[in-house]
Amino acid sequence: MSLPAPAPASAPLEAALADGILRLTLDDPARRNALSTTMMAALRAAVDTAGDDPQVKVVVIAARGPAFSAGHDLKELTARRADADGGRAFFTATFEACAGLMTAIVRSPKPVIAEVGGVATAAGCQLVAACDLAVASEAATFATPGVAIGLFCSTPMVALSRNLARKHAMEMLLTGDAISATEAWRMGLVNRVVAPAALAPETEALARKIAARSALTLKIGKEAFYAQAETTLDEAYALTARVMVENLLARDAEEGIAAFLGKRAPVWEGR
Amino acid sequence: MSLPAPAPASAPLEAALADGILRLTLDDPARRNALSTTMMAALRAAVDTAGDDPQVKVVVIAARGPAFSAGHDLKELTARRADADGGRAFFTATFEACAGLMTAIVRSPKPVIAEVGGVATAAGCQLVAACDLAVASEAATFATPGVAIGLFCSTPMVALSRNLARKHAMEMLLTGDAISATEAWRMGLVNRVVAPAALAPETEALARKIAARSALTLKIGKEAFYAQAETTLDEAYALTARVMVENLLARDAEEGIAAFLGKRAPVWEGR
Amino acid sequence: MSLPAPAPASAPLEAALADGILRLTLDDPARRNALSTTMMAALRAAVDTAGDDPQVKVVVIAARGPAFSAGHDLKELTARRADADGGRAFFTATFEACAGLMTAIVRSPKPVIAEVGGVATAAGCQLVAACDLAVASEAATFATPGVAIGLFCSTPMVALSRNLARKHAMEMLLTGDAISATEAWRMGLVNRVVAPAALAPETEALARKIAARSALTLKIGKEAFYAQAETTLDEAYALTARVMVENLLARDAEEGIAAFLGKRAPVWEGR
Repeated sequence: MSLPAPAPASAPLEAALADGILRLTLDDPARRNALSTTMMAALRAAVDTAGDDPQVKVVVIAARGPAFSAGHDLKELTARRADADGGRAFFTATFEACAGLMTAIVRSPKPVIAEVGGVATAAGCQLVAACDLAVASEAATFATPGVAIGLFCSTPMVALSRNLARKHAMEMLLTGDAISATEAWRMGLVNRVVAPAALAPETEALARKIAARSALTLKIGKEAFYAQAETTLDEAYALTARVMVENLLARDAEEGIAAFLGKRAPVWEGR
Repeated sequence: MSLPAPAPASAPLEAALADGILRLTLDDPARRNALSTTMMAALRAAVDTAGDDPQVKVVVIAARGPAFSAGHDLKELTARRADADGGRAFFTATFEACAGLMTAIVRSPKPVIAEVGGVATAAGCQLVAACDLAVASEAATFATPGVAIGLFCSTPMVALSRNLARKHAMEMLLTGDAISATEAWRMGLVNRVVAPAALAPETEALARKIAARSALTLKIGKEAFYAQAETTLDEAYALTARVMVENLLARDAEEGIAAFLGKRAPVWEGR
Repeated sequence: MSLPAPAPASAPLEAALADGILRLTLDDPARRNALSTTMMAALRAAVDTAGDDPQVKVVVIAARGPAFSAGHDLKELTARRADADGGRAFFTATFEACAGLMTAIVRSPKPVIAEVGGVATAAGCQLVAACDLAVASEAATFATPGVAIGLFCSTPMVALSRNLARKHAMEMLLTGDAISATEAWRMGLVNRVVAPAALAPETEALARKIAARSALTLKIGKEAFYAQAETTLDEAYALTARVMVENLLARDAEEGIAAFLGKRAPVWEGR
């Protein structure tokens, strides 16, 4: 949720690629990095492009300013109540864009890491939950406070409830209360909590470790992970046994295993 | 599990409504608040009635005496072995009533909070797991001890395994051992653990916070939560995106967002 | 993953039955107890046989040497790249055997406990996750390091992701980093962590407690657990309500409940 502020003159998302790590920085601090339609479109485009770009091995989603993201842009939504349909078409487009963005992150062949330095609320909290991994600063807090304004965080709950135990998710959703980074860590919403000054270095170290792997292997593994998570045990094993065979027959596994057995560093080719 | 005792003369469930909070107190301490057919019927009726009652915003399930609930009434079950069918019809009715009660709690449009001051075993532990939230006293313990008497806690496992990690649930079920409130908190079975004297006030504070929200919003959110939990990611987002649009178009969201942007308190109408 | 070593002359699995507890010890320390085709076949046969053997109440899977298991035998796999089909048929058979072994553990009517004293990696980590319960020594570590050799741990993820929160599983899979026994306990991968000297006694005490129960009751409960875990809430309750009725009508429940009400020890018959 965000208080009104002028829209930024330029694109609200900064992108920087270095050493295979694409760093996307939400850059609309005046609106607490609200997920406006502009922001969501920019983020979706960046994630989609990164998925196809062989230069990108890992994506980091970070933010400028004290808030990671305050979620949907309430000012933008409220303004459309004046539409002839009371806003229905715009609201529908907004939540479809949001769902599309979050699933694009899950479906991206590239691992996506959230770097959370401040407040992550509503769809901002959802964004953290939708990423594969998350690193948080001790200053970060997390909340799904929609209930307090009459708009339950129903889309955020999809990502949240696939990360947290049921009662933890329900407490966040029903109370709207913020939890600390440490609580988020305990509940499984973030992987690591570090001092604010260590946030970017820790995230980069994690990203570098993953970026050093075979891109093909990461793609195979990430796709298999979310696919098997939605199936029965038998289906999951049938799927992943096939995946393992194809993975093993790919050049990067041959190279990786040969390098391991030969006690040398592997040289990856796969994309 | 409970030791035999005379059935209470009056209804074993006390109900008190104040400030939108319906407090249901299991009131059969002599039988350790066993979930007899009478107790289950009373609880089911109260939960169903509360679901339709606009005066009720939140339901609390508490208990009188040292036990929260010892689960099914073994004396009652055992007596029906003398039936012509060896008890089959009565046992079937009992476990269908139990499943009906537990799903009625999940399906209720009103948030339900368990207030657990003592021992919660078997279907009593299931009752805690089936509630949306749970607050426990440090004196509370939790167990699914059916395995010790030859009757595996198979219905309790449904609620338990939807709250706990798999190996945690399996340890409780296979050993039958009791876990402390702190362990239950660590495993995600309860949201908060407090000193015995703080149990009722803490639960009430939590209930009051939720009761101050829009009843319509709570209903929308709770229904969406359990519905999306059983679907694939794509189905979950398709469902909740629609839910968000309808929620946003409802009067209480318009009011809540306007109040938030206007920095005033909202006035809810929705039921 | 394992470094090459000569295959053991005899069967790589030791089996010992005492007091209803079948202790299976992976006995190929020179190859770090790799899950070679020979090892998987021996383990599968032992698990299947135990399932039908009324003498066996509980199965413990332990290991000799500093490693619990290093996963698939990379030397064995690599050698088959020389096959006419590049290894495809052998790889397919290997991962089908692996999936078959892991599901056989889940489907066994007997509870299976992993006793983990050392490194459990890749399919070795999967084996721990596939067991119903796990006890670890403080010296144990757990990893899914396939990503480091270009072969993502896609079959291990099936068991891992059904035990751990999503971001925990993803961190293990994407980084390949080892976690300590304490971290594994926090994440829900193992039930207990003890000093190395206490590992076997603690596991045995846990096994003995479970072995003292009715075998029929354990079978009913374990089967119901994994069956209901893959269904909707309504299906889960419909299934387990039927299971409870049949369980209650079985002789061991009648005996167990009578013994409990009569304050005496039960005598089980059920198999």
